[in-house]
Formats: sequence, C-alpha cells, structure tokens
Amino acid sequence: MIGRKVALIGASMTRFGNLPEMDLLKLMVEPSLAAMDLSKIDLKGVGAIFVSNMLGDALSKQTSLGTALSDALGVYGIPAERIENGPAGASALRYAYLSVSSGESNIALVTGVEKMRVASTDVVTDYISSMSHPYAEYPSGATMPSLAGMFARLYMNKYGVKPEHMGMVAVKNHDNALKNPYAHLKKKITLDYLFGKDAATNNPFVADPIRLYDAAPISDGGAALVVADLETAKQYTDKPVIIEGYGEATDRLAVHEREDPTELRAVRVASQRAMEMAGVTPQDIDVAELHDAFTILEIAESEDVGFFKKGEGHLALERGDTSIGGKIPINTSGGHKARGHPVGASGIAQIVEIYWQLRGEAFGRQVEGAKLGLTVNLGGFGSNAVSFVFRRA
Amino acid sequence: MIGRKVALIGASMTRFGNLPEMDLLKLMVEPSLAAMDLSKIDLKGVGAIFVSNMLGDALSKQTSLGTALSDALGVYGIPAERIENGPAGASALRYAYLSVSSGESNIALVTGVEKMRVASTDVVTDYISSMSHPYAEYPSGATMPSLAGMFARLYMNKYGVKPEHMGMVAVKNHDNALKNPYAHLKKKITLDYLFGKDAATNNPFVADPIRLYDAAPISDGGAALVVADLETAKQYTDKPVIIEGYGEATDRLAVHEREDPTELRAVRVASQRAMEMAGVTPQDIDVAELHDAFTILEIAESEDVGFFKKGEGHLALERGDTSIGGKIPINTSGGHKARGHPVGASGIAQIVEIYWQLRGEAFGRQVEGAKLGLTVNLGGFGSNAVSFVFRRA
Repeated sequence: MIGRKVALIGASMTRFGNLPEMDLLKLMVEPSLAAMDLSKIDLKGVGAIFVSNMLGDALSKQTSLGTALSDALGVYGIPAERIENGPAGASALRYAYLSVSSGESNIALVTGVEKMRVASTDVVTDYISSMSHPYAEYPSGATMPSLAGMFARLYMNKYGVKPEHMGMVAVKNHDNALKNPYAHLKKKITLDYLFGKDAATNNPFVADPIRLYDAAPISDGGAALVVADLETAKQYTDKPVIIEGYGEATDRLAVHEREDPTELRAVRVASQRAMEMAGVTPQDIDVAELHDAFTILEIAESEDVGFFKKGEGHLALERGDTSIGGKIPINTSGGHKARGHPVGASGIAQIVEIYWQLRGEAFGRQVEGAKLGLTVNLGGFGSNAVSFVFRRA
Repeated sequence: MIGRKVALIGASMTRFGNLPEMDLLKLMVEPSLAAMDLSKIDLKGVGAIFVSNMLGDALSKQTSLGTALSDALGVYGIPAERIENGPAGASALRYAYLSVSSGESNIALVTGVEKMRVASTDVVTDYISSMSHPYAEYPSGATMPSLAGMFARLYMNKYGVKPEHMGMVAVKNHDNALKNPYAHLKKKITLDYLFGKDAATNNPFVADPIRLYDAAPISDGGAALVVADLETAKQYTDKPVIIEGYGEATDRLAVHEREDPTELRAVRVASQRAMEMAGVTPQDIDVAELHDAFTILEIAESEDVGFFKKGEGHLALERGDTSIGGKIPINTSGGHKARGHPVGASGIAQIVEIYWQLRGEAFGRQVEGAKLGLTVNLGGFGSNAVSFVFRRA
C-alpha cells in the first residue's frame, strides 16, 4: 500500500453499561473530547471524523452522526461520516487509516457509539439480527443467540468442547472486567456458580447450549481514538501506538452455507492479511482482544487467528494460556462478555484497550512488556471480520 | 494527497420510482451486476465494496449491507461496509477513492441504495428528519420541508427570488427527466400548471412557500459505480472517467445557527476543495448535478459552487443558463426533483449521470462536448456536502 505510517495518539471511552443519563450524542462527545484532550491536540487540528454506529436510526431515530459530532465539537469544514458494519466498529479505523495515510487529513477522530438500553431486549435482539441473511436467516427467526447455539453445538460435537469451557471464558473475562473501571459487568463468577446446583437459576439457557453467561450484555457506550500520521504523532507523544497492519474480509452471510460452519474464514483471512501487512506471526502477538459476543466465539477466534491449532483453543484456555500472565492474554478488558457490547462502540473499545496495554496504562490488568497487540472485530455472525495489528513505538 | 489516479470504468442504476417488486437487496444487486458487466470486469476482480444507505435498519430492518452485497455477488474475502451520511451517498465514492488510490484495492464497487416506499410518507419524512439537530431541530418538529420553507422565505426576502423561479427549476428538471429512461417522474409540467388558476390543486403548499412541485419525490432505487486505478482502468476501457478532485465539508447542524443561513457554506468549501484538487474553476465545468431535494437548493448551490454570483442564480435560471444547451446545464438527469430521490442512492445516481455525460452516452439529453463534470451531494440540510469533479479521459 502507498501512504504514510499511521499511529494512535489518544484513546478514551465512557463506562459501558446501562447509562440512562447519556443519549447518543453525549455518548459520542464525551469520549471524543477526552481522547482529544489526552492527545493534547487542538480541536481545530481534526481533519476528518469517522463515527461507527449500527442502530442509531432504528433505536434513537438519529442519522448523520458524523455531522452531528462535528457540530457538537465545533469543528467545521471537514469530512464526517457514519460507518456501519454490524458490530464491527473497527471498520471506522480502517477509513481513518486511509484518510491519514493518503494525506487527506493529518489528524482524524474515530468514535464508536451505541445507545441500546432505550429499547427492550427483544426489540434490540431483533434489530441486531437484521445483520443476518435477509432471506435465509432473518425471516426464519434466526437471532444471534440462536446462531451461536447451533455454532456451539457443532463445535462441541467436532472438537469435544464442553459447556464448562465456554464457562471458563466467562469466568476469565469477568475476572478481567473487575480490574477495568470502564466495564459493564463487575461481578465475580465461578464455574460452580455457572454449573453447580443453582445453574438453572444462576445461568439459565438462552439458546441451548448457550446460557446467560455465554452471551454479552446489551450496553450503552462510546469510545474514541485520535489517529495521526507518524510524523505528526511524534509531535504530540513519545508513545504513539503504530497501526502496523489491518485486514477485513467477508464470508458467506448465511452460516449454514459455509463449507465448514465451525471455521470463521473471515477471521482467518482478515487476521492473516493484517499480520502479513505488519510482518508478524500469531506467535509474535503479546495481547489480543477478540470478539466474544458469545463465549464460544472467543475459543473459535483464538484458533482462526492462529494462536492455537483448530480445535485446541479450549485446551489452551484450560491451561490458562489466555489469562493475564499466560502465553497470549485474550480480552484483558473483560471482552464484549463483561466489558460490555454497545455494538457500534465495541470494536473501538477493543482498540482502546490495546492502546492502553501497549502504552503500559492498563493498570491492574497490564500484560507486562506488551509490544504487539491484535484485535478481531466481527461484523455479523462471522460474515465480516476486521483485524488490526498495533505496535508500541 | 499521496496515491494513484482513480477513475470510473462502469456505472448503472435501476429505474427510480415506486418499485414494489424490488427489495433492498435486489435494489443493490441489479445495478451492481449491470455496472460490473458494462465495465467488463470479472466479479472476482472486485477488491472492496462500499454501500451507501441511509435508512436500511429503520425502514427495512436490514443492516450490514456491505456484507449482504458481497455475499449476493459471491465475492468473498474482501472489505465491505455501509456508509451513511444522510442523503450524501457520494461519501461512499470518497472511501472507494481512498481504497483504490492507496492500493488497498485495484477495483472497487460503490453501490447506493434506498428502499423508501415500504413506509408511509409521514414515517419516511420523520426518519429523514432524523438528520437534523437532535436537540435544536428534530424535537421541535422540524422536517426537511419545513426547513426548506424557511430557507426559501429568507432567500426570497434577501435576493428577490419568486416562487416562479423555484417553479422554473421544477419545469426544467421535469423536462430533462422526460429524456431519462431511469427517472421517477415522467410528467411534463409548465409554469401555468404550477401557478395558474388550478395551482391550489395542481401544486398545493407543503410548507409555505414550498409547494408540492418544489420537493423531490420519495423513491426506491439503486445505483452503482465501478472504480479502478487509472492503469487498471485503461485495461478495460478507452473512455475512463477520471476522478480529478473531491471535497467534503461540514457546517453547523442547526440551520438557524449559521451566520448567514442562506449561504450553504459546506457546499462552498467542499466544491472549492474539489475544484482546487482538480485544478479547475467553476467556469471550466461543462455539466453539473446539484442536490435539488428542494428546488430552492438548486438555485442556492448554483451560486455557492461558484457558477453564479450569490443572489443571481435565479437570474441565470431565467436566462436558461442551466438548461441543456445553456452555459452550464444543471441536473440533466432530472435531478432529485424528477429523476427521484432514494436518499442513499441519489448521490451515486448523480455520478452515474455525469459518467454518462462525459462518455457521450446521455442519449437525448447529452451536453455536447462535455469534458468536465461536477456533483454536489448534501448530507443534511446543508450541514454536510460532498463534491466531486470528473474529467473525460
């Protein structure tokens, strides 16, 4: 690719959770101002705005969020748009990368946002399902939890994964979230709580074998990144986080049409592309945020990224390889599972976490010496994936 | 800006109108396949997909349109997203430009789509108003027609524009649409029809002084462009249409907060930027498509682009300067007013028209010898504007 090196110089996020005091606009403005403040840039330096949001028109009856954020910040005369790729907010960073790399802008703001707790769970679940196949899945009543249920069942049959393995992802990510002040779910859980004698009430089935604690919560939240070309970046910080590579890939939209539905081909292709661009291998990565909207997805992605052999992610999890202190800590933020999952913001929040990790600012959950970080953000039930590789300068 | 030269090598659109037989997916797929077929590229050559759409989640309960189009075309392993900038679908071409220019892809597909006739006029009007200011406009009941009414009234007071001038835009654009097989409204109108003794029934007030024929219709439609780097483009056609420049700019979201609400500053800034990048002046442009969602906007934009002095656009219109055969023909397609205005697709349809004009393929409405074309696409009531300058190779 032709262009300049691009880096992150600021990052921030709101607390994720049920935030009745924050509307869509406030959820954008607060982390944007904080990220710009932390990066020490002048507001007027922002040359382009990229907003990631999935359901603003449906749930908040608000569109043109790029313009709305530009206006709220008082930064005029610049390009500003909303990008939607289901819950793959990381797509917005791809556009910022292209803008800054090409010289269209020198400093760009990327803000992910979602206001979900304005509607009931069934309404939200329905709208999120709007990213499934419009003929083959959605009209048949397929929802994300139901697809996750079928995916998990296939995974269990093929690779010997047990419900307890999915529970281990939840336990690990809840543990991590306890150390993240921005996380939605701050609750210590144990395998006994999830599968013991009170399992039916503590952890009821949502879509067998998916139980309550296998699914991410419905959250409000916003997250923001300040992006600059490397030369500009160095004027503002001696700790820029360099975007070394990225990749995005589509797969068949309908899960049942995939040759091997347990393989997340989009994750594999996107991540390979990102790592190739960065000139690194999965074994080089020190910390990763994966898209654990359902616990089984973290296990599957840890394999399709290349951290572990296919079918062995659950064994690595058992060994503690993906815990903080392990070989390749995954979802130190708590992940979608416990940090929360405001769909348009989650992909940006993953990158905020990696930014903090690579700068040594992930207090209490820091991966010591982390130099290389990777994110995987899904834009559907595996039908679209966006991966990034970041390096500490 | 750093990067390769970028050109259009294919363009197509569906007929715009009330198309009950076409859902959102079909409205994307049909023009995409046609544009790719016309450009003679292989489906597998497509390296990225950019879908422009404003209201898919609200009106059709469908998101992730980029992935859906990638899947419907059977092109996998590529980036694919939806971009939303109100009715400024041209934003999607900006992203395709960056993707191709940087070398991220060599051939990209840009598809604009909107399915609007699934809901009643009041529901659609309400959702379109969702791009107005979330505190200062929308909750007060401001709709696009009401903002256009106030804008037109200011314009009449300040510059002596008469309702008949707005009518002249409608008459001209309806005339042009009669020569465009893809247009929504195929109806010859006259000033006497609009303002004569039957005006009250023929052309009732919508938001005084805006009358029925001052507003674009609510349409279904899709439009697509195939974009390639110039080197690749030349392998497929000896008539590529080169993207010489583009610009995008935001302005204050709330119309009443603008220093001079009759000035479309975003249009001025975006167009100046596009022409500067192209190295041309307004006087060099041979044909233009402007955003006439309301007739008064065509007059205002013709001034803010720089074709005419501020306050004199209506005089140019009187003289016939903007008619086919005039100095600078505007909206030869019929414009949003008569070609139709499926919001996410309109900006792409404007570019399709310029593509045809610059290749000499605008049969019956051809601007003879057209070499340079310009488009202006609004992403709100003037709060965001996207301009492009194209050149015949």
